[in-house]
Amino acid sequence: MAFSFPARESARVTIELGARSYDIVIGTGLLGDPHTWSGLPVGATALVVTNTTVGPLYAGRLEAALRAHFKAVHTVVLPDGEDHKDWPTLQRIFDALLANGCDRKTIAFALGGGVVGDMAGFAAACYMRGVPFVQVPTTLLAQVDSSVGGKTGINHPLGKNMIGAFHQPLRVVCDLDTLDTLPPRELSAGLAEAIKYGPIADMEFLGWLEGRIDALLGRDREALAYAVRRSCEIKASVVGHDEREAGLRAILNFGHTFGHAIEAGLGFGQWLHGEAVGCGMVMGARLSQRLGLVDEAFVARLASIVARAGLPTSGPALGADRYLELMRVDKKAEAGQTRFVVIDEPGRAAVRTAPDAMVRDVLAACTR
Amino acid sequence: MAFSFPARESARVTIELGARSYDIVIGTGLLGDPHTWSGLPVGATALVVTNTTVGPLYAGRLEAALRAHFKAVHTVVLPDGEDHKDWPTLQRIFDALLANGCDRKTIAFALGGGVVGDMAGFAAACYMRGVPFVQVPTTLLAQVDSSVGGKTGINHPLGKNMIGAFHQPLRVVCDLDTLDTLPPRELSAGLAEAIKYGPIADMEFLGWLEGRIDALLGRDREALAYAVRRSCEIKASVVGHDEREAGLRAILNFGHTFGHAIEAGLGFGQWLHGEAVGCGMVMGARLSQRLGLVDEAFVARLASIVARAGLPTSGPALGADRYLELMRVDKKAEAGQTRFVVIDEPGRAAVRTAPDAMVRDVLAACTR
Repeated sequence: MAFSFPARESARVTIELGARSYDIVIGTGLLGDPHTWSGLPVGATALVVTNTTVGPLYAGRLEAALRAHFKAVHTVVLPDGEDHKDWPTLQRIFDALLANGCDRKTIAFALGGGVVGDMAGFAAACYMRGVPFVQVPTTLLAQVDSSVGGKTGINHPLGKNMIGAFHQPLRVVCDLDTLDTLPPRELSAGLAEAIKYGPIADMEFLGWLEGRIDALLGRDREALAYAVRRSCEIKASVVGHDEREAGLRAILNFGHTFGHAIEAGLGFGQWLHGEAVGCGMVMGARLSQRLGLVDEAFVARLASIVARAGLPTSGPALGADRYLELMRVDKKAEAGQTRFVVIDEPGRAAVRTAPDAMVRDVLAACTR
Repeated sequence: MAFSFPARESARVTIELGARSYDIVIGTGLLGDPHTWSGLPVGATALVVTNTTVGPLYAGRLEAALRAHFKAVHTVVLPDGEDHKDWPTLQRIFDALLANGCDRKTIAFALGGGVVGDMAGFAAACYMRGVPFVQVPTTLLAQVDSSVGGKTGINHPLGKNMIGAFHQPLRVVCDLDTLDTLPPRELSAGLAEAIKYGPIADMEFLGWLEGRIDALLGRDREALAYAVRRSCEIKASVVGHDEREAGLRAILNFGHTFGHAIEAGLGFGQWLHGEAVGCGMVMGARLSQRLGLVDEAFVARLASIVARAGLPTSGPALGADRYLELMRVDKKAEAGQTRFVVIDEPGRAAVRTAPDAMVRDVLAACTR
């Protein structure tokens, strides 16, 4: 086991949800420090859910730290990738829970990226109608976005995240050390969700990202710490106002309606989720411009930072009909009408419908 | 279509759960009357979930009544039986929801017995992270118990109802007419859950059941109406105090720890759930007697009404080891220790542990 420096917490962000409030802890050396896992509800058993990529790197360190608090620590290792975010893979978590005699007080620990977090969280939501879980995100995308807010679920062949639950974690622990082992493509994908917070909520943060994008790609620890913290602050504020997406929370889906269509259209796992969102944001900005909400310069600015982050700015040529068909099963759709998150003005988003002809026009401009 | 008499509501019981409160409507002619379905949230689409037994009898009537309120009414027909309460069958509901472009405002209608209600409710809990649903129970067991209280889920090969969610319906409509077509074995199974309310909460109701058991088996309409109403009143009171089974609600599981072991041990679908519960209650009463909580006469009294209802009073010879193993995965278990609902005194239940030797003794006395 590698020598580890003393744990150092650099920031703590609280999600205010009444009895379901919880903290996001951001720092270094956290994962392997028993102190990180203090104060959780008392239970006999912990189940670590991870995948074949992350498990060999970090599961041993986490298990050792958890043994200070739990009588038994079990681990289940899932295959890696969005194309495994399905029922047969979820079933492996249930099998592990039952085979190890896990009871209602068992705590599940999601150690990995967005896919592991969504699946471990959904399994925790459903096992015995609900057991607690903790998010230990190891990708930038999971740290800035998917581990926070309690959305869990799996994909259906006809649509992304179509089967799931709202189930809030007890705690989110973002150990920045884990970003050292992240492949460059995954780092870029994570930046997409960080960039997203700019146009929808905080143009000052977008300006900061533009200035620090090279430092972030170079894994500058302080830059990453700030990007994770500021992203979590914005997400915490939105989720605290609208836990179950009755309204406001939908703005966090900027770029996602187009993005989900790309992911489902190519087959899950071809493009990373963050790559599809990066491209989807450019499409969403273009749609906002066509609706007369933002100007050409704003679209160009967003496309530029997306490109500098190493993300695609034009989508695969699935054909406009296929895009429209895939977007109609989006969760925001109502009565057969697709609804898009658009930028009302830089730093403020809204949910709107748009004529099919305009969407076709946007797709023509933004696909190869 | 058969001529139907004007709908007549005979009772209405409210489950008090704050913003999630809802009514149980009990009466005749309800299912085919458009008025029954007034006042639900406005949505474009309804999905009726039923099975191959109940669908041909009642789906047409329900669909016609729903068309007064919904632009589109779709129906998905599942195979009948507890052995189909699994993921592949659940997936058929998701497939139907997606194939029909059902959005977040779609309302699912569970038309059938406990299995249909549990599966339609769980699918509604998970589809797009939650859509509303209505229970339309057509068996006595579902009317007196399973349709009320928001427990939904499916079985895992290693344990009953291990995967599920708490998801309250918008309304429960108990149309007593549907009991006319119920096979005698199913009628008896339903009586098991009605009998249950006596020892755990209301010995006066047990006395009433003893006096009216023959009328109930003869499908006397007034007797059935009262049994359904009184059962729902007791369940409403318990669930209103403890929606998510933090404590009190567990008493509704009297007879179920033994019963679930019988169901899982024989293979789901061999014994009806109510049959296993009937037998399980006799075992639970015997355990309570061994613990010194109730006397021999109480055990005999409970065994007698169970037998008169046409239910088994002794369990299959699975072997005590197998029973103990199956009971250890019960949802009430904690840290490897099985917990039983016992009768503290007639009309009052509690959750207790018991020595393995005592449980073996009870099993020896209560299995063939």
